[in-house]
Amino acid sequence: MSKIKVGIVGGTGYTGVELLRLLARHPDVQLRAITSRSENGVPVSNMFPSLRGVVDLKFSDPASGILEACDAVFFATPHGVAMAQAPALLDKGVKVIDLGADFRLQDTEVFEKWYKLAHSTPDALKQAVYGLSELNREHIKSARLVGNPGCYPTTMQLGFYPLLKNNLVSANALIADCKSGVSGAGRKAEVGTLFCEAGDTFKAYGVSGHRHTPETLEQLTKMTAQKVNLIFTPHLTPMIRGMHSTLYATLLPEAVAMSNDELQKVFESTYVKEPFVDVMPWGSHPETRSVRGSNMLRMALHRNGDVVIVLVVQDNLVKGAAGQAVQNMNIMFGLEETAGLLGVGLVP
Amino acid sequence: MSKIKVGIVGGTGYTGVELLRLLARHPDVQLRAITSRSENGVPVSNMFPSLRGVVDLKFSDPASGILEACDAVFFATPHGVAMAQAPALLDKGVKVIDLGADFRLQDTEVFEKWYKLAHSTPDALKQAVYGLSELNREHIKSARLVGNPGCYPTTMQLGFYPLLKNNLVSANALIADCKSGVSGAGRKAEVGTLFCEAGDTFKAYGVSGHRHTPETLEQLTKMTAQKVNLIFTPHLTPMIRGMHSTLYATLLPEAVAMSNDELQKVFESTYVKEPFVDVMPWGSHPETRSVRGSNMLRMALHRNGDVVIVLVVQDNLVKGAAGQAVQNMNIMFGLEETAGLLGVGLVP
Amino acid sequence: MSKIKVGIVGGTGYTGVELLRLLARHPDVQLRAITSRSENGVPVSNMFPSLRGVVDLKFSDPASGILEACDAVFFATPHGVAMAQAPALLDKGVKVIDLGADFRLQDTEVFEKWYKLAHSTPDALKQAVYGLSELNREHIKSARLVGNPGCYPTTMQLGFYPLLKNNLVSANALIADCKSGVSGAGRKAEVGTLFCEAGDTFKAYGVSGHRHTPETLEQLTKMTAQKVNLIFTPHLTPMIRGMHSTLYATLLPEAVAMSNDELQKVFESTYVKEPFVDVMPWGSHPETRSVRGSNMLRMALHRNGDVVIVLVVQDNLVKGAAGQAVQNMNIMFGLEETAGLLGVGLVP
Amino acid sequence: MSKIKVGIVGGTGYTGVELLRLLARHPDVQLRAITSRSENGVPVSNMFPSLRGVVDLKFSDPASGILEACDAVFFATPHGVAMAQAPALLDKGVKVIDLGADFRLQDTEVFEKWYKLAHSTPDALKQAVYGLSELNREHIKSARLVGNPGCYPTTMQLGFYPLLKNNLVSANALIADCKSGVSGAGRKAEVGTLFCEAGDTFKAYGVSGHRHTPETLEQLTKMTAQKVNLIFTPHLTPMIRGMHSTLYATLLPEAVAMSNDELQKVFESTYVKEPFVDVMPWGSHPETRSVRGSNMLRMALHRNGDVVIVLVVQDNLVKGAAGQAVQNMNIMFGLEETAGLLGVGLVP
Repeated sequence: MSKIKVGIVGGTGYTGVELLRLLARHPDVQLRAITSRSENGVPVSNMFPSLRGVVDLKFSDPASGILEACDAVFFATPHGVAMAQAPALLDKGVKVIDLGADFRLQDTEVFEKWYKLAHSTPDALKQAVYGLSELNREHIKSARLVGNPGCYPTTMQLGFYPLLKNNLVSANALIADCKSGVSGAGRKAEVGTLFCEAGDTFKAYGVSGHRHTPETLEQLTKMTAQKVNLIFTPHLTPMIRGMHSTLYATLLPEAVAMSNDELQKVFESTYVKEPFVDVMPWGSHPETRSVRGSNMLRMALHRNGDVVIVLVVQDNLVKGAAGQAVQNMNIMFGLEETAGLLGVGLVP
Repeated sequence: MSKIKVGIVGGTGYTGVELLRLLARHPDVQLRAITSRSENGVPVSNMFPSLRGVVDLKFSDPASGILEACDAVFFATPHGVAMAQAPALLDKGVKVIDLGADFRLQDTEVFEKWYKLAHSTPDALKQAVYGLSELNREHIKSARLVGNPGCYPTTMQLGFYPLLKNNLVSANALIADCKSGVSGAGRKAEVGTLFCEAGDTFKAYGVSGHRHTPETLEQLTKMTAQKVNLIFTPHLTPMIRGMHSTLYATLLPEAVAMSNDELQKVFESTYVKEPFVDVMPWGSHPETRSVRGSNMLRMALHRNGDVVIVLVVQDNLVKGAAGQAVQNMNIMFGLEETAGLLGVGLVP
Repeated sequence: MSKIKVGIVGGTGYTGVELLRLLARHPDVQLRAITSRSENGVPVSNMFPSLRGVVDLKFSDPASGILEACDAVFFATPHGVAMAQAPALLDKGVKVIDLGADFRLQDTEVFEKWYKLAHSTPDALKQAVYGLSELNREHIKSARLVGNPGCYPTTMQLGFYPLLKNNLVSANALIADCKSGVSGAGRKAEVGTLFCEAGDTFKAYGVSGHRHTPETLEQLTKMTAQKVNLIFTPHLTPMIRGMHSTLYATLLPEAVAMSNDELQKVFESTYVKEPFVDVMPWGSHPETRSVRGSNMLRMALHRNGDVVIVLVVQDNLVKGAAGQAVQNMNIMFGLEETAGLLGVGLVP
Repeated sequence: MSKIKVGIVGGTGYTGVELLRLLARHPDVQLRAITSRSENGVPVSNMFPSLRGVVDLKFSDPASGILEACDAVFFATPHGVAMAQAPALLDKGVKVIDLGADFRLQDTEVFEKWYKLAHSTPDALKQAVYGLSELNREHIKSARLVGNPGCYPTTMQLGFYPLLKNNLVSANALIADCKSGVSGAGRKAEVGTLFCEAGDTFKAYGVSGHRHTPETLEQLTKMTAQKVNLIFTPHLTPMIRGMHSTLYATLLPEAVAMSNDELQKVFESTYVKEPFVDVMPWGSHPETRSVRGSNMLRMALHRNGDVVIVLVVQDNLVKGAAGQAVQNMNIMFGLEETAGLLGVGLVP
């Protein structure tokens, strides 16, 4: 089979360089273009010397037409960009995967409320498929446009799913206390993410409202007939990559009698065939570093009375962003789902 | 007034060196002795060059009798040590502050269950006062023996207290999702706290049971007539000092109508006179670094429907250990409560 | 004695907040004003919550005239600012300490070459005294305008001084391999000092030319009749505060016969009376953390054949900036030189 | 071709787990055994959850005979172990690569002086080949026993080699100011490498003598007819992986007239065909993170008068240990030299 021709829009951020790292070694991919208006003509490896000898491309002008000649284009851009450019690519038969927020929320009113931006392509949005690979694989197979999930929502959905799907917990009092490495904030020059501001300290942020809440709510609602309510508390932790979500859910009266073994089996059977979800033995404490640089999401269960505690870890830039995007590309193009994604977590 | 003569048992760990840092500059204290069997005769500043020119003491043998000549002795030792040595000191009229766990729990059965050790001095224990300075000041004033609180329990108690005391939340479903810097694990040589094991990663630990749960439960129970249930989830975060507790409590039906302003005022009025508790404006996100090296504990409130979220930060080695111990000494000896404790948080 | 009224220009950076931390607890100082055009009217503690309850000032407009009413004004500003504003203050009898570069170099041609800026006040510059406290104390006593040294130059000068002053090494082949924590780069929003760019990595920078070279050369030249040549290689290391300089100097033939003991004594006798220079025993390895938050500079000697190696550490924000500035203020106003500067290094 | 059967002795340390990470994805390797007396029977992935689903082996008893059935055995052990066990394996026709120090130094007197241990197998030592892949490739091809270089020596040799080989600098005054991440100290439980001891601080160590000096001297001496003298100053920097060596060498009078371009070409032509040595453009500042997790060694040149400064970075666990060991295995078995080693540096 000939290789898939791939383009990237917005390759100067962390999800962009992570896509490059993964795609450069992907056996079925030919990297064709990476665009950046501001860096047009600059070799990618000048900005990221880690790619010297690996990626020979230069940043190119997004207006050059090179993206239209690709089979697949990834948008690693702030919200608003994909929505403006995707329709023309789709018209040319290019498949599009947006790592931003433009195609995650089907409810455009909710989108506009949280992103302060009218949705300019509701038609494209309608055909967009939400790219949580494990839970939406069948739709992704035939998708032409995928809205890749946010990092936090990936952990919350995969962690709560077995409980909600099987109607074991109350959906009305879910708590997700989540901790992210600083790379989640992107590569923008901002005081708050300077080494001396974010290092050796810990804080919550956005406790009164975060854009990943409506995205997660929309998806969790599909999993259950119950009314869903979610308290989501994000925190910033002084590490580069990694995300740890501590999920709390209260067993319904009819499920309280379940043994820990039974609960564990619910999770194991849900994910037994998944190459990128690892359910650890009951009572384990997964570490984020165990998935550093890897597309694996790892979880473990605990219980305190009626409350089930699910600990979930992932690399926010891989399973939480670029890795899952590649996983979705693999699904969309009928490739081996694990192609290019078998890198092992870098420990230590 | 002549200075208080102070001794320290076990000065080679982090709470020990922190006591030295604080006491060396305390205006009313004369450091007399610091004991360590293994380091007997070694100048303290050999082990901690930060103390060169500041502390001239050598480690001395605990059997030398020098502690009996002190006015106050701090135990910065693992559990079991203070319980063995405190009674003899108390008999000589020395006041004792134990930073370990020996005198925190009045229920000796609970103590034995969690610490796998019979309590050898139940008589001394009976006169021990729990040293949460803000909530127990009157008893500490006349105490001869103080059990200094654990680091996590300090944040949980001060954070939940205004809600429980005023009967605003259900005590039956308290959740404390807590994150500690690595210094909380002490200065023992262990693989798990090596730089390359604890750095650039995040994990929970002890989710199925932690010794700070029974201590906190015993104290929270005193605050309310309700039955108390607490889910406590500790995490290790890659920073040296600092602790962040994210507390969740559900408003009782009779309190749901309270406005955010009213809730805020409950907290502000509770702590308005406290020199070491700072209630930030509603909706703030306190950072642990804002109290790095300082005895301040800082908190802020958020709300999501019926759930009140209290964010609490402290330096685990200061307000969470050595600083609060000095605060208690100040109270016990009738000194200015802030004496020696006015250092400002080191930022950045 | 009435307190010294102090103002700060440019208090939003790291040297500014460090001045605030030190001056807020200085027994002889009354903080009067801190100016910032952009933050005019904002309480300082809004920007730096570590100062809540410690500093009650609001940022004020530099044009308000409040600085003229001070006894001393610190400039914690980029180069160019102090040179524009200091003359008017000096005319009013205000003493000025500039933590920037405007008054460090007496040679205005060199200044203009390295800072790409004409020196606008050569007259003020002529009366400026270089503020390396230990080596220039007598001039600082009567100074009205002090150019506070750069961070790297402080370590290089104090480390090489005993060797050059006593004519023990060749001045023609000095090498200074220096490593700085990231706070040395300031609090500007720049990609290069983001947590995810500067964390968990190490690099040199400015190897082909750094502004601290001419400053150091000008000063080293005063110490010896030899022609001075210096190779200065700065590096960025993933820590917040701290600076470590590894200095290499080759013994002159007439000094090669000196024993290690004799070399050690040269250093010890040079600094024996200095409260803020600590010569450790021969062969020690000083750690930057031993001076974290402290005004101490610590050094130790090693030797390999004819080459003497001096290891020097300081906190770049304290002895390398704000602390030394306060030390200079103490000297200028006839205060105890250590006033407000006795904080102990924060370990761990 | 059938896969190479590989065993590892001592897989519980950082070089061991790094070998596992690399070999598990090596296309021509079958991992057969990993031995550890203390962990016998424990699944490797219990100790390193990053290997769950990647490595299914259990630790086995080194006495089980399983190693003798391998084609190649790596020793990731402290010195003394390989020397005791290698001869028996060699007798069985197993090829051996020792990542420890036992087969690095041909001079057994020097070995015994620095390692306080008599060399027990001088015969095996005689056939051992020093495994600096780039400089010794032809001998490695036919080697049955390889002594894999130390991490620091790899950077010093590859950095100084073009200068010494071409007789451009004085070999008598080489200075190597080197900085290592903490993983270089291994996974032993020791106070000095705890997170709270090695984090947020910087120090030199072993300045008066380090075991990598004699190893490097022995090799540098082969490169030139001059007498070699080396000052080697190792430092510990608060990052997990990565090594940065700043090398200083003084041009010989006959080379002083060379232009920077000519010097650059010397380096580029030396390494033009090397897949794992990257000479960056003149004046670059390589970052350690650009090779995080990768087998690449990256360098760049600067000059200050007569002194050439070579900046060299590598991942100490990859090119400085496990990666170069795999590279040597590839060479010994006639495989593609880059097989299994094409992972891209993990940035950020």
